[in-house]
Amino acid sequence: MANTSGYHVAVVGATGAVGQQMIKTLVNRKFPYNKLTLLSSSRSAGKKITVNGEEITVQEAVPESFEGVDIALFSAGGSVSKKFAPEAVKRGAIVIDNTSAFRMDPEVPLVVPEVNEEDIQKHNGIIANPNCSTIQMVVALEPVRKNFGLKRVLVSTYQAVSGSGAAAIQELNDETKALLEGQTYEPHVLPVKGDKKHYQIAFNAIPQIDVFTDNGFTFEEMKMINETKKIMHMPELKVSATCVRIPVATGHSESVYFETEKDGINAGQIREVLASAPGVVLEDRPEEQIYPMAVNAVGKYDTFVGRIRKDPDEDNGFHMWVVSDNLLKGAASNSIQIAESLIRMGLI
Amino acid sequence: MANTSGYHVAVVGATGAVGQQMIKTLVNRKFPYNKLTLLSSSRSAGKKITVNGEEITVQEAVPESFEGVDIALFSAGGSVSKKFAPEAVKRGAIVIDNTSAFRMDPEVPLVVPEVNEEDIQKHNGIIANPNCSTIQMVVALEPVRKNFGLKRVLVSTYQAVSGSGAAAIQELNDETKALLEGQTYEPHVLPVKGDKKHYQIAFNAIPQIDVFTDNGFTFEEMKMINETKKIMHMPELKVSATCVRIPVATGHSESVYFETEKDGINAGQIREVLASAPGVVLEDRPEEQIYPMAVNAVGKYDTFVGRIRKDPDEDNGFHMWVVSDNLLKGAASNSIQIAESLIRMGLI
Repeated sequence: MANTSGYHVAVVGATGAVGQQMIKTLVNRKFPYNKLTLLSSSRSAGKKITVNGEEITVQEAVPESFEGVDIALFSAGGSVSKKFAPEAVKRGAIVIDNTSAFRMDPEVPLVVPEVNEEDIQKHNGIIANPNCSTIQMVVALEPVRKNFGLKRVLVSTYQAVSGSGAAAIQELNDETKALLEGQTYEPHVLPVKGDKKHYQIAFNAIPQIDVFTDNGFTFEEMKMINETKKIMHMPELKVSATCVRIPVATGHSESVYFETEKDGINAGQIREVLASAPGVVLEDRPEEQIYPMAVNAVGKYDTFVGRIRKDPDEDNGFHMWVVSDNLLKGAASNSIQIAESLIRMGLI
Repeated sequence: MANTSGYHVAVVGATGAVGQQMIKTLVNRKFPYNKLTLLSSSRSAGKKITVNGEEITVQEAVPESFEGVDIALFSAGGSVSKKFAPEAVKRGAIVIDNTSAFRMDPEVPLVVPEVNEEDIQKHNGIIANPNCSTIQMVVALEPVRKNFGLKRVLVSTYQAVSGSGAAAIQELNDETKALLEGQTYEPHVLPVKGDKKHYQIAFNAIPQIDVFTDNGFTFEEMKMINETKKIMHMPELKVSATCVRIPVATGHSESVYFETEKDGINAGQIREVLASAPGVVLEDRPEEQIYPMAVNAVGKYDTFVGRIRKDPDEDNGFHMWVVSDNLLKGAASNSIQIAESLIRMGLI
């Protein structure tokens, strides 16, 4: 049903790092909402958030919160999504879920609009937003796949702490300040809040994001592997990942190696297809020291790509450096792009 | 000539980040020196450094400084090495050079004692110490090569600022402090002191170490590629690198992908040969969140290896995470190990 007067949008996890960016992005992209319901756990309920001059009180999420909601944006952890997304769908909302709860469910489309917008059509009430580190990589890989085919991807990530939420940003700041002042700091959030041990992130690199799986890869690494194949519709694609947390607040960087299907491609051709690709900004002028950097990507919706060069030994192999704001394209703005696609495609 | 009463050792670049570690390492490893001459540019000459309770005045390096010197450890930049290393050799010293000045010279052995100690025998007065990021990688790769053969290496680095010297450590500290206090800071050292533009390293990742070459790779990346082949005597080895500076003071981390020559190897076998390899400490117990980290490697001579796992798609492909103190094994302690090898092999 087309709704010309705007949509009732709910944000679940409104006080979190991603939730905050979702609210900002709805405003900044002039998303056509006529009502905004902000939901959270009981702990954060009652907080007031000013949105576009209007003060909105955050309410505790209960099944009834979703009555009359058209689009529910979830980013409050997998267990919250598992509990409330079906309740929202039952009440007629379309759920865009930023957690990993439904991403690998064959009934749930996993969508990056620049890559597989058409998958939205197959939704059954829930559309999943991929993992932050996956999104920016597939935005950069899709133009390559489309033009030259893709055989293989190896990625090493340089991920910002905000991927672990607002508490992790606070920990990076507090810990860095303490160490610079010669004091000690007892980490309690990173690398993974719920895991047994916590380590210093300030002036360090931690090769663990999310908990470990039995095969020695972390869940974050397995997400990159599995989600990439699903989004790109390439179950046969060879993908591997090493995910690392570094002392950056916002902005994920990735060192990506890939092999094209097509032979005889050069770096200039890769650059050319990326320069005109949707959602991609090419920043690749080494002679002027122009390349993507996390601090420059903050606050932007695009994915920045540079350092593109042919592998010295592998004819079809290339390297690139991919950077994006993990809270925006990696989460909030991709979710809202999905909502925009729903409208443009006449699906809501 | 064996010298049982000890050697006259000169440190060129004694006031620099690496020079300081060279002096400390000579003391800590009880290197048999009977005289220590500390040399620098005219700018730092006159400074006094206390070594093992004895105060030594740093002198300006001139050709005559090397009269009577047995071993000259150079770490004051390539131009200083080019100028003074031949002068030192002319006066009978053996030069161990930590700059890139002579590394790719076919007449100069490029040595990591755990990998190619025997190459020291071919020296003509100068022995080159490899680049920091190369050393720790080949220490971890050599046991693999020796047992299973090696076809291919792809590395993405997470490098500490101290690789750019003491001024870069200062910049990281000053800049981080300024940003945490809401002030601005004008970077003037990183990514490369002598390059045109300087960028923020605090809370950022910069995909540039050293200046760019014409092929789009940086010199640092080309060093990793070329030095690895030379040290391992494998001109045919496929190697590529992406080198990235992150806001860490000391301790380089590396995400290394490699392919073995031998088929049918599993991660357990890789772990096994690394556990007993010289200079390697295996830290690989994901179930207990045990893996190498930069902050734990600081002050140690070893190379720490963990996160070893088979690639999901490539039968002979493996991933590992390699960490070491870039000022010690990456520079100072490798240089002094070379000097120790000279003695043990009866070459001085």
